[in-house]
Amino acid sequence: MSLQEVPVPTPSTDIDLALAAELGQQLRVDSVRASTSAGSGHPTSSMSAADLMAVLVGRHLRYDWDHPDHPGNDHLIFSKGHASPLLYSIYKAVGVVSDEELMTGYRRFGSRLEGHPTPVLPWVDVATGSLGQGLPDGVGALAGKYLDEAPYRVWVLCGDSEMAEGSMWEALDKASHYKLANLIAIVDVNRLGQSGPTELSWDTDAYRRRAEAFGARVYAIDGHDVAAVDQAIARAGDLSGERPAVILARTRKGRGFSEVEDREGWHGRPFPSDMAERAVIELGGERNLAVRGPRPAEAGPARLDRSRAEVKPPVYDRGQNVATRKAYGETLAALGARHDVVAMDGEVSNSTYAYLFAQAHPGRYFEMYIAEQQLVAAAVGVGVRGYRPFASTFAAFFTRAYDFIRMAAISRASICLVGSHAGVEIGADGPSQMALEDLAMMRSVHGSTVLYPSDATSTAALVQAMADLDGVSYLRTTRGAYPVLYDATATFPVGGSKVLRFADDDQVTLIGAGVTLDACLAAADQLRDEGVSARVIDLYSVKPVDAPTLTAAAAATRGRMVIAEDHHPEGGLGSAVLEALAGTPELAVTHLAVSEMPGSGTSEELLDAAGISASHIADAARGLLA
Amino acid sequence: MSLQEVPVPTPSTDIDLALAAELGQQLRVDSVRASTSAGSGHPTSSMSAADLMAVLVGRHLRYDWDHPDHPGNDHLIFSKGHASPLLYSIYKAVGVVSDEELMTGYRRFGSRLEGHPTPVLPWVDVATGSLGQGLPDGVGALAGKYLDEAPYRVWVLCGDSEMAEGSMWEALDKASHYKLANLIAIVDVNRLGQSGPTELSWDTDAYRRRAEAFGARVYAIDGHDVAAVDQAIARAGDLSGERPAVILARTRKGRGFSEVEDREGWHGRPFPSDMAERAVIELGGERNLAVRGPRPAEAGPARLDRSRAEVKPPVYDRGQNVATRKAYGETLAALGARHDVVAMDGEVSNSTYAYLFAQAHPGRYFEMYIAEQQLVAAAVGVGVRGYRPFASTFAAFFTRAYDFIRMAAISRASICLVGSHAGVEIGADGPSQMALEDLAMMRSVHGSTVLYPSDATSTAALVQAMADLDGVSYLRTTRGAYPVLYDATATFPVGGSKVLRFADDDQVTLIGAGVTLDACLAAADQLRDEGVSARVIDLYSVKPVDAPTLTAAAAATRGRMVIAEDHHPEGGLGSAVLEALAGTPELAVTHLAVSEMPGSGTSEELLDAAGISASHIADAARGLLA
Repeated sequence: MSLQEVPVPTPSTDIDLALAAELGQQLRVDSVRASTSAGSGHPTSSMSAADLMAVLVGRHLRYDWDHPDHPGNDHLIFSKGHASPLLYSIYKAVGVVSDEELMTGYRRFGSRLEGHPTPVLPWVDVATGSLGQGLPDGVGALAGKYLDEAPYRVWVLCGDSEMAEGSMWEALDKASHYKLANLIAIVDVNRLGQSGPTELSWDTDAYRRRAEAFGARVYAIDGHDVAAVDQAIARAGDLSGERPAVILARTRKGRGFSEVEDREGWHGRPFPSDMAERAVIELGGERNLAVRGPRPAEAGPARLDRSRAEVKPPVYDRGQNVATRKAYGETLAALGARHDVVAMDGEVSNSTYAYLFAQAHPGRYFEMYIAEQQLVAAAVGVGVRGYRPFASTFAAFFTRAYDFIRMAAISRASICLVGSHAGVEIGADGPSQMALEDLAMMRSVHGSTVLYPSDATSTAALVQAMADLDGVSYLRTTRGAYPVLYDATATFPVGGSKVLRFADDDQVTLIGAGVTLDACLAAADQLRDEGVSARVIDLYSVKPVDAPTLTAAAAATRGRMVIAEDHHPEGGLGSAVLEALAGTPELAVTHLAVSEMPGSGTSEELLDAAGISASHIADAARGLLA
Repeated sequence: MSLQEVPVPTPSTDIDLALAAELGQQLRVDSVRASTSAGSGHPTSSMSAADLMAVLVGRHLRYDWDHPDHPGNDHLIFSKGHASPLLYSIYKAVGVVSDEELMTGYRRFGSRLEGHPTPVLPWVDVATGSLGQGLPDGVGALAGKYLDEAPYRVWVLCGDSEMAEGSMWEALDKASHYKLANLIAIVDVNRLGQSGPTELSWDTDAYRRRAEAFGARVYAIDGHDVAAVDQAIARAGDLSGERPAVILARTRKGRGFSEVEDREGWHGRPFPSDMAERAVIELGGERNLAVRGPRPAEAGPARLDRSRAEVKPPVYDRGQNVATRKAYGETLAALGARHDVVAMDGEVSNSTYAYLFAQAHPGRYFEMYIAEQQLVAAAVGVGVRGYRPFASTFAAFFTRAYDFIRMAAISRASICLVGSHAGVEIGADGPSQMALEDLAMMRSVHGSTVLYPSDATSTAALVQAMADLDGVSYLRTTRGAYPVLYDATATFPVGGSKVLRFADDDQVTLIGAGVTLDACLAAADQLRDEGVSARVIDLYSVKPVDAPTLTAAAAATRGRMVIAEDHHPEGGLGSAVLEALAGTPELAVTHLAVSEMPGSGTSEELLDAAGISASHIADAARGLLA
C-alpha cells in the first residue's frame, strides 16, 4: 500500500465527550510514538494540546477530509507548528495518513510529514514553525468574511510562548478591527517554553486582560476538562458576534505521562524507547479510533469569483514624467477588474498610490495600518484562499516583515509585494526611510521574483505580470517622476531586459534599473559626445535575471561593464549580474552602489554623493577604457 | 559663526507653567519655520506634541545640555522620529543649535539636522524614523536599572499610529517584566495618521486598557493642558514603583493653526510660505526663549565598569568534535570577565548556548523570550549606553528583526548578533528553522561584519574579535559538532581567511565556510586521490572578505573555483566571492548553494540533496577541469 492510499475509516461523526477524551489519549500516544520513532520532535508540546484538538476535530471542526479544497471547510492552523506530532496524529485519526506513514515518515527525508507543517500536505494552509505567524496568517479570515462571505471558521492553535511576539497582538488588533468573529485562537497555556517557564506562566488572567483589551472574546478554561473545552469551543465558534475569540486553555506540558508532565527540560525532546513504552502504557496503550467530526455545510459558500473582466491598464506617453509608484497604483486599480485581486497597505497608501485601488474597489482593499508583519501575513492568509493579494508600503519597511516573507515562500503562497520610496533617491527624509537592502533581502527568498522598473510603461506591464506569477514577487518603485522611456506596445517579460542603446562598436556596457537607468542613459550621452559608444541595459528583472543579454553584452564590450544601483553594494543588482556572469571568461566590472551612510538632501545631491549619478557612471566607463 | 559654535543662553531652570506654554508655542513656530524653510518635513506632527515636550524639557528632563555624555542625564527618544522639527526646535530652545542652523540646515544636504533624528547629533541616542522602534530601544533602560544602577529616566515620545506595531507591545511587555519604572512612554494621541485617521482615533480608554494589561502605569490627559501634562510627567517620572509609565496625551495634530488643526491631508506637508506666515502670526509670532530645565544629579551614577579582567577563552584540541554554537557560549561566558559585556537571547539559550553566559553572569543576562524585535532593540538600547551586547537566537529568526538591525546601523550602534542552527544542516526541523537568507540579509547592512566559522577554535577567536568591532556584527554558528581544525595559537583576523590546502600545482580552488568547509576538505581528499591538487579556503570572514587571497587563488588555479554554501544562492558566500573578484580577468566559477526548497531529513541527507556535500563539490571541480 502506498502511503497515499490510506483506507478511509468509517467515521464517527460528532463523537461524544467520552470518546473525545479517548481520542485525546490516542493523539498523545501517537505523538509519543511518532517522535520517538523519528528520534526528534516535540511530544510534550503535543500532549498539552491533545484534549483541545480532540474536542475540536471530533465535535466542531467542519471539514471534509476527503476534499481539503471544499470551499465550506473550516481551517485549522497550528501556529505552534512544533506540535506537528499532534497534527499528524489527527491526520491519522481522521484517516488521511496511515499509522505506517506516521511511524516511518515523520521528520524523515523525502516525507511530507516534515518537522513543522508545510502545505506539501493538502490539509495545511500555511507553513508554520517560526512562532507568532499562524495567528497573523489566520487573519486571512478576512477572505471568509468579506470576500467569500462564507460561514467557515479559522481555528488557530497557539502556544503560550509565542504570545510574546508582537505580531500576535497585531493579529488580534486587526481581527477585532475587522470584526473577525470567524477567527478563533486556542492558546495552549502549558507554562513552559523551550528553555524555561514562560513570561506569564499560568497567569491566564494576565492573558485575558491583554486579549480583551485587544478586542477579543475570551474563554478561559482548564484545557484538560473536555466538557469545559467543548463549551468554550462551541461558544468561540459562534459567528453571530463581531469579535474574534481567544480560548485560554490552562494545560500541562507532557500531560498524561508522569515522568515528564509539567517538568522543565523536556521541550523538543522525544522520549527514548523505554520511556516511550512507559508513556504509552500510562496513557492507556495504543488506540485506533477513527473519527471524522462534522462536515462543512453542503451548500458551500459563494466561491471565489475568478471572472476576469477586461483589464484596461493605463497608457503613458513617452517623455511624460510619471513616478513608477503612481503607475503602480493606476495599474493596480485597473487590475481590480479581476475580482480575485485584493490590495492592502501599511497606512501609506497615499505614498504608494495603493489608494487608487482602495477608491476603485473599496470592498477588496484592507487597510493594515502601521503593522507590516500583519500586512504580509494578511496577504499570505488571503493568498492561500485563492485571492491575489498586492501588499504595499515603503520598500524599507518590508524589512520589518522579512520573517513573514521568508515563511510565505515556505507556505508556497503567491503574493505580490510592492515597495515604494527606494534608495537615496527619496531625498530629504534620510536613511531610515531609504530601502537600501530590499533587493538583497527579496532576491534571497526562495523562488522569488524581483522587479525594478524604470518607467511607467514597464511598471504597468510588470504589475500585470506579477498578478499571475507563482510565489513571492516583489516590485520596487521610485518616489520621483522620471520620463516614460517606452511605447505602450513594448513588452517586458519577467526574466528579460531591455537594451536601450546598442551599436556594433559598443565599447562598454552600462547597466542600471530604476533611477539609475536614467543616469546610465545620461552617461551614455556624455560618452557618445566623446566618441565612445556605450550599450545601455535596463535590467528591470533583477530575479530572474537576463543572463543571455548580459553575456552577449559582456562579449560585445570585452567584458567592460558598469553596474549602477541605488542600493547597498551587497546582494542587489551588482550581485545579480556577477552571479549571472560567473563563468564569463573576460570580465572587468565596475560596480557603483551606495557605500557610505547617506543623510538628507535632494535626490540629485544624494545620488551624486553616493556615486551613482550620470557623471560617476561615465567616469567609471572612462576608467574601464583607459 | 560656525554652526557648531552656538552661544549658550543664560538658562531659565525649571520654568513655570506659563513659560512652558510659551515655550510650546515657540516650538510650534520653529517647527513651522524649519519645515517651511526646508520645503519638507512634518510640522503638524510636531505641533501636536509641542506642549508635552515644552513641559518635559522645561521642567522635568534632567539633562546637562553641555555634556550629553553626562552619566546622570535622562534620555529623550523621539520614537515618532518624523517630529524632528520639534526635536530640533527644542535643541534651539536649550541653546545647542542656533536658529540659523535650524533654518538653513534642516533636511539639507550635509547637515546634521537630518529628516529623521540620527546620532550624528550628540543628544540623540538612537536613530528613529522607522516607527515602532524608539520605545523598544528605550527598553535599554535595562542599563539604567540593572547595570548603571543610576536614577536616570528614559522618556520616549511615541506616535499613536505606531501603537499598531507589535513591537511597541513587545517593549511594554518587557518593560513591565523587568520592572522598568525608569521608562516612560509619552503617546501623542493626535488621532490622525499619514493617510487618514488612526485605528483607535482618540479612544484613549482603549489605549489605556491595552497599556495597563501590558503592565504599565497609565496617565491619560489633555496633551494641551500644561498643568495636566506637568502633573502626569511628574508622576510618570517617579522611580519608586516597579512599572513602566505610559502617558496618553489626547492632542490635536497641527495644534494652534486653525487652517490645519485636526484636519486630514496635512501629514508630512510643510506649509507654503504664505500659510507659514499666517501660522506664525496665529501662534503669537516668533520667540527666542532660552531654557534649560533641571540638571542631572551632580553625583553621577556608578559609571560603566570598563575593567577588563583577564579573559580566559576556551581552548579546543584539534580533531575533537565541537559545535561552533557551543564554542560561542563557552567563549561568551569567558568574555564575561569584561564587565561591559552583556548577553540576551530569544528564549532559546539552551540551543544557542547563551545559557552558559547566563549561568556565569546572571546579572548581565537578559532573557527576551520569543520577541526577536525587542531582542535586537534591547541590544541597541544597552549598546548605546556603552555596553557590549551579544544577542542570540536561531539564525533564521533574526529575519524577524531585520528592520531593527538595519536601523541599528543608522543608530551607529555596536551590537553583536549570533545566529545558530543555520542552513539545511539543522536536519529534521525543516525549512522554517533553516536560516538560508541570513548571510544576504546581514551582508547588506551598512558597515556590518559577517563571520561564519567552521570550527570551535576559530569561533572562539572571532567571538572575542566581535566584542571590539564597531557597528553591527553577525556570527553564524552551526548546530552539529564538527572537528576542530585549528591549533589554539592560530589567528583569525576579521577580513582574513585560512588556506587549508595549498600546493604550487593547485588546479582548482574550493571555497567554503561553516559546514561546507568540512565538505571542501573531504572533496579535496577525493580529488587528491585522483591526482588533482585542490586549494581549500576557509572563508570565515564573509564581510569584509579576503579579496587578496581569493585573487591569488584565482590566479593560481586559472580562475577555476568552486564555492559551496549552506544558504540560498543569492547574496551569500558566492556573492561575496564574485563581488571581490569582479575585476578578475579569467574566472570560471561553479557556485553550489541551496536552490530547492528543503524538507526534513538528516544533515547528511539534506546537505547532499542540496548539492553542497563533498561529492558534489568534487564533481563540480571535475567539471571545471574537464
